[in-house]
Parts: sequence; C-alpha cells; structure tokens
Amino acid sequence: MPMIRNRVFEIVEAGAKETLLSRGFDIFMMGLILTNVVVVVTETVESHAARYEAFFYAFEVFSVAVFTVEYGLRIWSCVEDPRRRYIHPVTGRLKYAVSPLAVIDLLAFLPFYFSVFIDVDLRFLRVFRLLRILKLTRYSGAIETLGNVFRKESKPLFAAITIMMSILVLLSGVMFFLEKDAQPEAFGSIPHAMWWGMATLTTVGYGDVVPITTLGKMVGAFVTLLGLGMFALPAAILASGFAQEVKRRDFTVTWNLVARVPLFSRLTAIEISEIAELLRLQTAMPGETVIRKGDKEDSLFFILVGQVEVGLDSGPVVLERGEYFGELGILYKKPRMVTVTAKSSCQFLVLDAEDFNLLLAQHPDLHEEVMRVAAQRIEGEGIAGENV
Amino acid sequence: MPMIRNRVFEIVEAGAKETLLSRGFDIFMMGLILTNVVVVVTETVESHAARYEAFFYAFEVFSVAVFTVEYGLRIWSCVEDPRRRYIHPVTGRLKYAVSPLAVIDLLAFLPFYFSVFIDVDLRFLRVFRLLRILKLTRYSGAIETLGNVFRKESKPLFAAITIMMSILVLLSGVMFFLEKDAQPEAFGSIPHAMWWGMATLTTVGYGDVVPITTLGKMVGAFVTLLGLGMFALPAAILASGFAQEVKRRDFTVTWNLVARVPLFSRLTAIEISEIAELLRLQTAMPGETVIRKGDKEDSLFFILVGQVEVGLDSGPVVLERGEYFGELGILYKKPRMVTVTAKSSCQFLVLDAEDFNLLLAQHPDLHEEVMRVAAQRIEGEGIAGENV
Amino acid sequence: MPMIRNRVFEIVEAGAKETLLSRGFDIFMMGLILTNVVVVVTETVESHAARYEAFFYAFEVFSVAVFTVEYGLRIWSCVEDPRRRYIHPVTGRLKYAVSPLAVIDLLAFLPFYFSVFIDVDLRFLRVFRLLRILKLTRYSGAIETLGNVFRKESKPLFAAITIMMSILVLLSGVMFFLEKDAQPEAFGSIPHAMWWGMATLTTVGYGDVVPITTLGKMVGAFVTLLGLGMFALPAAILASGFAQEVKRRDFTVTWNLVARVPLFSRLTAIEISEIAELLRLQTAMPGETVIRKGDKEDSLFFILVGQVEVGLDSGPVVLERGEYFGELGILYKKPRMVTVTAKSSCQFLVLDAEDFNLLLAQHPDLHEEVMRVAAQRIEGEGIAGENV
Amino acid sequence: MPMIRNRVFEIVEAGAKETLLSRGFDIFMMGLILTNVVVVVTETVESHAARYEAFFYAFEVFSVAVFTVEYGLRIWSCVEDPRRRYIHPVTGRLKYAVSPLAVIDLLAFLPFYFSVFIDVDLRFLRVFRLLRILKLTRYSGAIETLGNVFRKESKPLFAAITIMMSILVLLSGVMFFLEKDAQPEAFGSIPHAMWWGMATLTTVGYGDVVPITTLGKMVGAFVTLLGLGMFALPAAILASGFAQEVKRRDFTVTWNLVARVPLFSRLTAIEISEIAELLRLQTAMPGETVIRKGDKEDSLFFILVGQVEVGLDSGPVVLERGEYFGELGILYKKPRMVTVTAKSSCQFLVLDAEDFNLLLAQHPDLHEEVMRVAAQRIEGEGIAGENV
Repeated sequence: MPMIRNRVFEIVEAGAKETLLSRGFDIFMMGLILTNVVVVVTETVESHAARYEAFFYAFEVFSVAVFTVEYGLRIWSCVEDPRRRYIHPVTGRLKYAVSPLAVIDLLAFLPFYFSVFIDVDLRFLRVFRLLRILKLTRYSGAIETLGNVFRKESKPLFAAITIMMSILVLLSGVMFFLEKDAQPEAFGSIPHAMWWGMATLTTVGYGDVVPITTLGKMVGAFVTLLGLGMFALPAAILASGFAQEVKRRDFTVTWNLVARVPLFSRLTAIEISEIAELLRLQTAMPGETVIRKGDKEDSLFFILVGQVEVGLDSGPVVLERGEYFGELGILYKKPRMVTVTAKSSCQFLVLDAEDFNLLLAQHPDLHEEVMRVAAQRIEGEGIAGENV
Repeated sequence: MPMIRNRVFEIVEAGAKETLLSRGFDIFMMGLILTNVVVVVTETVESHAARYEAFFYAFEVFSVAVFTVEYGLRIWSCVEDPRRRYIHPVTGRLKYAVSPLAVIDLLAFLPFYFSVFIDVDLRFLRVFRLLRILKLTRYSGAIETLGNVFRKESKPLFAAITIMMSILVLLSGVMFFLEKDAQPEAFGSIPHAMWWGMATLTTVGYGDVVPITTLGKMVGAFVTLLGLGMFALPAAILASGFAQEVKRRDFTVTWNLVARVPLFSRLTAIEISEIAELLRLQTAMPGETVIRKGDKEDSLFFILVGQVEVGLDSGPVVLERGEYFGELGILYKKPRMVTVTAKSSCQFLVLDAEDFNLLLAQHPDLHEEVMRVAAQRIEGEGIAGENV
Repeated sequence: MPMIRNRVFEIVEAGAKETLLSRGFDIFMMGLILTNVVVVVTETVESHAARYEAFFYAFEVFSVAVFTVEYGLRIWSCVEDPRRRYIHPVTGRLKYAVSPLAVIDLLAFLPFYFSVFIDVDLRFLRVFRLLRILKLTRYSGAIETLGNVFRKESKPLFAAITIMMSILVLLSGVMFFLEKDAQPEAFGSIPHAMWWGMATLTTVGYGDVVPITTLGKMVGAFVTLLGLGMFALPAAILASGFAQEVKRRDFTVTWNLVARVPLFSRLTAIEISEIAELLRLQTAMPGETVIRKGDKEDSLFFILVGQVEVGLDSGPVVLERGEYFGELGILYKKPRMVTVTAKSSCQFLVLDAEDFNLLLAQHPDLHEEVMRVAAQRIEGEGIAGENV
Repeated sequence: MPMIRNRVFEIVEAGAKETLLSRGFDIFMMGLILTNVVVVVTETVESHAARYEAFFYAFEVFSVAVFTVEYGLRIWSCVEDPRRRYIHPVTGRLKYAVSPLAVIDLLAFLPFYFSVFIDVDLRFLRVFRLLRILKLTRYSGAIETLGNVFRKESKPLFAAITIMMSILVLLSGVMFFLEKDAQPEAFGSIPHAMWWGMATLTTVGYGDVVPITTLGKMVGAFVTLLGLGMFALPAAILASGFAQEVKRRDFTVTWNLVARVPLFSRLTAIEISEIAELLRLQTAMPGETVIRKGDKEDSLFFILVGQVEVGLDSGPVVLERGEYFGELGILYKKPRMVTVTAKSSCQFLVLDAEDFNLLLAQHPDLHEEVMRVAAQRIEGEGIAGENV
C-alpha cells in the first residue's frame, strides 16, 4: 500500500521523480486546465453556448470528476512527501489541505457540487471556474517567482506606490476643482476625477473623460508628465526584479551542477560561479536527437545524467556522465558531422560556442586539456571532420 | 519637565527611539491621515455628502484637533532633537517651524480655522485638505528618496527634458501649420496643438484631437515615433535611479551592521561589502514567531539586537546578539524543525538560503566555522533533525 | 564552370567575400525589396492604383523576374557554400531549398505565377507580396538576433506570458460579470471583455469599450494598475536581452580581432576582453577618407585589413595591417592635422579618445609604448602638430 | 583690436573662459530664446494676437536685432578659437559659418529679413521662428549627447527599427485585408491601415480607427502584443544609452580631476577610476555659501580651483586648491557647525557621506590619513564640535 501511495505521489506531484507516466500526467492536466479555460470563455458567447450546451456540460462534469480524483489522490499521497512536511496521517494531511496550492485545487471543483444543491448565479460561477487557470501555478513556477520579486522588491515598490497614490489623489483633487463646473457629469466628484486620473497616469487614455477648460488642460498636461515618470517606476522595478529572479533560480540550480563536471574540477569557486552563469540546463528523453549531422556547431554539451550514443561512421560510441561532446565542431569551425542521440533520460549543461571560445581564451589550462582530448578523439577516429 | 518633553519627542517623532507607545502613535497618525483622504474624496460625491454630513463635520473637527495638538507637541518638543539642530528655545523652534515637514503639518489644519472666520470656496478648501496626504512623507521616506533621485540624476533628467520640450514645441508648431485649416477648432493655435502633442508623445492618446489631413497623419506618425523614444528617457532615468537609491539606502544601513556580526569578523572590508548586499534587515516585536516549525528552510538569521528563544524538545534555549540560527535546515536541506520566538524587540540580518550556500562555497573558512558550530549544536541536542 | 558558379555564389550570397560587385548586388536587391514594399502599399490607395496601373504591373513583372533569376542562381550556386553544408548536387540543393531564407525567396515570386493561371483574390495576393520585406532578413541580421533573444530569454518570457494571460483571463471574467448587464453589447461575453482587457492592459486604450458601472471602474482601475506592471515585463525582458545580444555579437567578432593587434600582444586574455568592449569595427572602401584634416581628434584607428595613406606635408606615408594612427591628436589634444585615406578595402578597430586615455592610465606599459612610437613619428616628421 | 576680439570671443562663446560677463551673456541669451518661443506660441492664439500685436512686433524686431548682432560677433571673433580650428581670417570664418551651430544662428533671424521684402505665408514663418529653440543646443549639450547615443547605439537601433517597420507593414497589410470590407473608409488602403498600426503599436491608441470584425480584433490583439514588445526596444536602447552617455561625459571630466587631489595621490589608476565614479563636480561663484551652519553633514568637498573661507569662531581660515573640508561632521556624525564661503570662483569635487564612509572602510591608509588631519584640525581649534 505505501508503495502504491508512493508511486501515486510521484505521478501527481509535479517536480517529483520524473518518469514517463508522471510527465504524461502533467501534460494531460495542463491540457485539461487550458481546455477548461477555453471552454469557460467560449461558453459566454451566446451563439456558441446554445449550440454546444450538451457538450459543455459533459465536459464540465468530466473535468470536475478528474479534478476531484486528482485532489483526493493528492491528499491521500501527500504523506509521502520526501521533505517529510506532511508526514503525519491526520495533521499532516490537514496541513497540506490548507496549503495555497491545495486550496486552489479545491476551489477548482467545489463550486460545481454547491451549484447542484444551491441555486447560484451562473455567471458568478463561471468567473469562479476561470480560477482553474491558477492550477497552472503548480507547473510554471512563474507565480512563485513573481511572489519572490514582490517580497524582495517590496521596499522600492511600496515607496513607488505611495508616491503614485499621492500623485493620483492630489492631481484628481485639483482636476475636480478645475473641471467640476465645466463638466459636472465627468468631474463631479473626486472619485470621478480619479477615473480620469488613472486612465491618464497609466497612459491608457480611453478618451471617455477629457479636461476641456484651458487651465484643466494645462494642469493635465504638465502634472501628467511628472506622473508618467512615477507610474513607470513600479513597472521598471518589477521588470528588472523579475528578470533577475528568473536568472537567479536558474543560476542556483546550475551552480550546484557545474562543480560536478570533471573538466572544471580544478577551478576555484569564483571561476565556477562565472562559468555557471554561461551554462544552461537542457534535458532529453530516451531516443531524442541531441545533435543532428549538418546543424550549426553552436554549442557544447556536458553530460550530467544519462548516456548518449555518438553515431560515428566506424560504429556508435557511448559517452556518459562527466563527459562532454560537441567541442570539435567549435574548435575547427565546422558544422556537426555526426548525430548524437540520448540513450536514456539525459540532463546536459549546454555552453554556447562563443562562450566556450572566450572561456578557453581566459583559462589556458582548460584550453590545453580540451585540445588534448580533441586530439585523442580525432586520432581515435582517424578523420578529424568525421568527429562530433 | 524636560524629561516629559523628551518622552513626548520620542513619541511624536517618527524614527526616534522605537517604543510600543511611539509605534502605536505612528500607526494611529497614519490611519488618521489615510482616513482623512478617504473622507475628503468621499465627501465630493454628492449623494454621500448629504447623507453623512454631520459625521463628516465631526470627523473634520476631530482631525483638526488632533493635528493641532500634534503640531503643538512637535513645536514644543523639537528642542529635544538629539542631533541638536533646534536646541535654542526660540530660534531653534522657529527654525523647526519653517522646515518643510512642519509647514506641511501646519497646512493640514490652518485652513480650517480660516474657514471659520472667512468665507472660503468650499471646493478649494477640500483640495487643500487633500494635502494632508503629504503628512505621510514623514513615515514613508519615499518622497525623500525621490528627492535624492532628482538631485543625483538632475543632469540626464534636465538634458532629457530639454529635448522633450524642444520636440513638443517643434512638433506642435508643424502640426499647427498642417492641420489649422482642416480643424480650426482643434489645431487653431500652437497651444491647442501642444495639447494634442502631449497626449500623443506621452502615449496617453485620448483621441479627442486627432490629425485628419494626410500630411498631418504622416508627420504625426513618424515624428511621434521619434518622440516616444525621447519621452521614455526621463521615465527610464527616474526608474533606474529610484531603484538604485532605495537599495543604496538599505545597503548603507546594512553595511554598518554586518561588521558587527562575529562570524564575519575575519573578512576584509570588500568581502563585507559583498555580503552586505545579500543581507536584508528584519525586525520582530517581543513574542513574535520568527521561524515556525515545518516552514521552508529558506533563510538564516543573525541577531543584531535582542534575544530569541529556540523551542527545542529538551527545553527552550536562548540565543542573543551576535549569534545566528536557522543554518541547520539549510545545511541538511530539511524544513524547520523548531519554532523560534523573539523574547524582546529584535533586529535580524537575514540571508537567503541560496546566498548562504554560495557564500560558503566562496569562503572555505566560513564553511568550516559554520560546520563546526553546526556539529556542536547537533551533538548538544542529540538528534540532528530536531535542531533549528 | 565551377569557377563561374563560385563567382556567382560570392555575388548573390550576403556575407560571402566582400567585393564591389557583391556589394552593388546587395544594395540593388535591398533597394528593389524596399521599392516593392512601397509599391504594394501605394497600390492599395485607389486614386493611385488607377493612375499608375500600367507602371505597377510592369514593375511587378520586373521584380518577379529578378527574384526568380536570383532564386535560380542561389539554388544553382549554393553547393559552393564554403561551410560545405549543401555540397551534394541534389540533396544539398534540396536541403538549401527548404532552409527558411530560401523559402522566403520562393514565396516572394511564386504567388505571381499562380495568379496567372488561377483566379486569386487580389487583396490576399497583395498581403502575400508584402512578405517580400522578409527578404531583408538576409541583410540585416536583426531577425536572427531577435530569434536568439527569444531563445535565450525563453524562460522569463514564458513565465511573464503565463502571468499576463492569467491576468487577462481573470480580469476579463470579472469585468464580464460586472459590466454585462450595463453594456450587453460591449461586455456580452468573455471574449468581448478580453478585447477591452487587451486594449487596457497594453495601455493602448482605444476608448471604444469602457466600463461604466462604478464597480467596473474601480476593478478596472485597480486591477489594471497591477496588470500594467505585468505587461511591462516581457517588453523589458526583450529590450534588455536584445541590447545585450546585439552588443555580444559585436563583442565576439571584436574579441577575435583585438588579439591580432600587435600593440595589445602583451596583454592577458582578461585585459583583451576589457579592451574589446571599448573597440568598435569600422570599414572603409578604397579612396574613402578616414580622417579629415581639422576634424575633432575623437578616436584612434587600428588597421586590421588593408592599407591607408597618411597625407603628410613631406609626402604620403603608407600604414598597413597591425599599425595604428590618430593617436597624436589625442595625446597632444589637437584637432586632426592630416587627412588619412584608405588605399584598399580596409577594416579598422576604432577606440574613442576618452577610452584611449583611460586605457593608457590603467596600463603604464601601453602608455610607454604609445609614447615611444609617438616620439618617433614626431621626430620623423619634424613638426609635432603636423602629424596625425 | 585682437584683444577686444578675444574678449568678445570669451563672452559670446559658451564654454569659453567663465567670467561674470560671459555668464550674464549666456543667461540673457537663454532667457531671450525661451521668451521668443513663448511669444511665437502665444502669438498663434488669436485673442492674444490681436491685443498684443504691437508688442509682439516690437519684441520680434528686438530679438532679430540681438540675434543679428550676436551672429556678427560670433563670425568676427571665431578666429580666436583656442583650438585654432577657424584661425584663417577668410576660410576659417567660412568654415565656422557652415558649422551646424552657426547655421542654426543664421536661420534664427534670416527669415525675418526675407519676410520684409518677400510676401511669405505668416504661419510658415512662425514655425521657422520656433527653430530658435535649437539655439539652446549651444548651452545644454543635451542634443550633442543624444547624437552620440544615436551613433553608438546605431546597430541595435537600426536592427530594432527594421523589425518595427516590418511588423508595421505586415500587420497593416493583414488588417487591410481583414477590415477593408467592414470599414472601407478607415481601412480602405494599407496607408490607412498603417495609421491605425502606428497608433496601436506605439500604444497611443487614439481610438479614431478601431477594428470591428471578430478576426480583425483577434489579429489586432495578439499581433499587437508582440508588436508592443518590439516598439519598446528602441525606447529602451535609447534610454539606457542616454543615461550611460551622460554619466560617461561626467566621468571622463571627473577622472582627470581626481588624479590632482593630493589625498588620492597614492592610489592606483583603477582605484582612482572607482572613486571618480562616486564624485561629482560642483561650482560656486565668489561669495556663495558652500556649507551652511546647521545643515546636514551629507558631503565632503575637495577644492579643485579657488579658495574658500571657513568661518571658525576663532576667526576665518582660508583653504585652497588640493585641500578638503566637511569631513569632521561625517566622521563624528554631527550637523555642520561652521559656514564655508567661496572667496573666489571655485570648483569642487563632492563626495557623499555614505560613499566617504565606504571609501574609508575599503582603504585603511586613506582612513588613517583622514583621521590624522581631523585630529590636527580639532586640536588647532580646541573644540571638536565647532569645526567643519
């Protein structure tokens, strides 16, 4: 039983051990979520709603069934979490049930059951069903990243928002004072003026409300200019924070892996940091082609996990963990001359050709080592051009 | 008497010695200011104005009373300023009274007294009352930061604004020339054309004024494109300057604190600079939970001020200034196994788990020291997993 | 025959060996492509279409003829590619024919032949002819750069787009719920609401659809503010990635060239990296003036390829590969005193005066070497001011 | 005569030797130019035009007279240029006359003389008079900076513009195809569709032209999103380039000055580079107050040019070139205790308090030297708090 439960945990939990089955489950769930969103959106178009009503209902029942079973399996198997956070059969499961992701899962199907018993506004229900898009959080990591950005940049963000709100309130107050008599319907109160203020300061500029007095236009034009700069602040802070955060997540993962590459074993921690920034992670399923003969020689691959088969003319050669391939084309500036295929599930660190060249230039000892291996490989094969 | 005055100073002055009373006062004032803004904004909506008139008036009287007393206390106690800027009983107080923050305080209630005696336009008064939002300046620091940004980036900002104004004037002149005959009411003068120019160059684009001649559209489209780039300049300059300035303020504060952490005592000034960038400041009130059992092991805490209680199974252990906690979870990659509570008002320097790992990788001696302490802690406790 | 084919290859293939003929061909093709775009655009204006119909048709026939011949020549000569990617007479040519650039070339003229036999919607055809603008890809490299940016920044971009789409869907759902009854024609379905959502979140703000209920305006204003920050993310990611990528392409090219400059031969790889960032590549056709007497002394030139003639009063002096000129003006802060002309096709690395000064300050040995050469040059010429 | 001519040159030429007279002349000219722009703009408002006609004409005559005399003096005195670019009495002056700044000067008054003899369209003339704003170029340096940015960033800018134009043309073609039948007046030709395309892609979004077909809205929404990212590229490239360029101009000037400060004489070139980034240039006229007693101790001053008087209680002390002041307040964290006044025209390098503290932390030898001087100063004065 625990073995089955453990197996279920691995399948339903994204990020757990990667198997074909768990990957398939992830893809199925993502597809189902996206289809749900499309269906909810389409359903609101009356002409479609009428025509496909039966299909829409059937799909809804199917989705709710799947989401319910998925939720049940998650609650049942969460005690298998290898980080042992939910290990207790009762309190552990309760703790899991109130975690944000589990609550989102629950909200995805619970309203349906309510609607069966209670008479709820259908439109309200539809908006609720749109929340299913949040189930994607589990797979993309984007929202988690965004949360980190908000946390880390909270000080400048808060400062910027304070300034924005002050400008909005003051500017709207002034415009209310200036335009009220000329346009009592559009600037009749400060909240009305704030609607204009938001549309203007965000540069949306619907044009449904526009100052018409000369003084109103002057204040509008000049204060707005100042405001625009202020309203660009949070966007800029978020944007730079977001890009940094995404790169940093990658970086931390990569750094831990670079130290395992034998070629880099003699480098210092700081040099490893530098190289880690240049490398990116790539995976391949068994049978996937990593390098195709005739392609551009644009990168070098370090094998972290798994084995690859190099299709030399003299017969296939197997490379495995710790070895690298793809360097000959870069060193001798020729397109790929062999095809390399993954034999098992593989993970690679990939280095761009330009970065590889710079790296060799900066580390003469690396250069020497790489050239020595290249010489062996060419000799072993007999014809330089026929190597990787 | 001076002792009471000193006590009052500590309470009314944000940023002075942090006590429960002074923090409570700050929160009360911020709440009152925000409520005032909401009330002024709401009051302009006629339907509300009539219904809640009595309440609005009572609230206004109450606010003015509080602001008046606050102003009096500030003027009275400003001589206690520890930086001794306003030490003289008469000239010192006068000097304080003309400082920007004191003027804002005065403007917050003075118009009310005027309105009692003189007959002032009510709407004008309302806009004045909105200025109370500027009293928040004292608490947020955002406007001070913004001022620094304007000062530091004044050269590029001035250059950018010169270019923007030149483009606006020239473009409006050309559009006036091209569109005047076709739309005498919208482009009848250069100031009229400038209203279009501002709406276009800031990308607000209300659409109330649009060129209609072919030549006007062509010039509009092409010159606008150039102008857009120019109008993005000040926003970009402000945004990057603002983010830098906020981080720099943090940094300077942090730097001075890092040198006090015993673990970092053997590092050079440059290494301290590097670490200071990674740390952030965090405070806790007495009784606050700093780490909760079962949470993610995402950070390490250095105690700068105060004491914390570690809730070990074998009984509580107290850590104090100079010590750190939260490292075991990171080292052994396990969630928090104990709860840590602040015993007194605490200040911490917080280091993210990823940064901690990088730091250890780059400083082998730090790594050794941290591992030595960790070993002691585990041994002392007996069960590794049951430590912090 | 292969020699003619090789010659043709060099002419039609941008980026192959640069000769006057191949450069002329490139300019002719770019001009033809741009003229085509202008013609297609103009043709849709009815008044013009009628008047110039005959000319437009003739031009179309001419363009199609040129594009057809060009395509034929490319297919015929692609086997000469020095990277030997398409070396096989049949399969190599087929492989070339399915490469993206070749497909674009084919699409540029094929629809014309179809339209002769089949009756196609003329307007549809015109849009197809606009695709000819993609033929510029071959010459600008911009789209290739953009492709690289999308590939490298794919993770943050994908994360940002996930967030944007979620916000769009949820926001549109809420607005549909709030505005449906008030404006059944504008917010009658979620897809309708999404049209408003896109116009608002991208800050385009047409104003054709605007919320009118109080709640709709409030949600619109506040959620929009959040959305704006999110919609700025991909733009910011693309912009910074694009600028980096363009600079990086330059950098990689430059780096390889700096190592060849004799003056820098004693520098380490890291120092070369630093200098490479400061240099930019410049070319000159035979007879072109590189430095004009009396100009500002704003840069220093290293000759990578070709020869230049320095017009000294004592007669012309020839400098060639590996030598540099233009340093005397910078060292002695005087405007150019001689004119330097390219004798052959030249490539230079250009260093700005300010960077040159900083470089000398940071590398005393370089400074010494440069001063030694300067002294020789002045002595050789007799009058310091009359040198380059 | 040449002495008078030289004196005139110094007065009329911005950036030449700074005297009170030349500074006054600059301020007068800038004021006159700005007033001219205001007048031209105001004149187009019919109500004003009638009322102030006589004044406007008198002002125009006066301005033209001043601009003519100024132009004459510039042409006459340009031979005095210390860089000896225009030294020849005839060809030198001709060369100066065709330089961009001289052409702008000529265009500022020449049309007036033409209008006296020839009958020119008055509105056209007005637009020409607006060009006088370009005369500010001589004083602000902003346009020169912008020119440098365009030159340096020309590659990414050109690439971005190629992409933008391709997107605009293709998108407009598609929208023309989709919307032509539904809105023949708004999307009747590709140029018409391009007007929509520009308004949308720049996010101006007037709303005068909007797609109304479902397919048109879908293509509009999705392609627009892509386009927005592309249209942000040039703005971002310009903005970052502009900020860098402005800082770099400052930096180059500063770097050359830092080396002259005795305190920094023992630093290496790289350390000087680091410090140069932190310093900014500040000037003071004779009699100006540099530090006012009681101000915040926010910066340290190095004297580059001129003398200052320190108003100690024991009588004034004079500091001059190479010395620094303002460090005691920072070291002992007290507000300014003395007032420092410029005795002559002064130039300072200013270092912020935070940067000064960091600098001392990173350079123990500097710290020692600064503390030694501080000790002497305090001893000399007797009371620590009463020093600078």
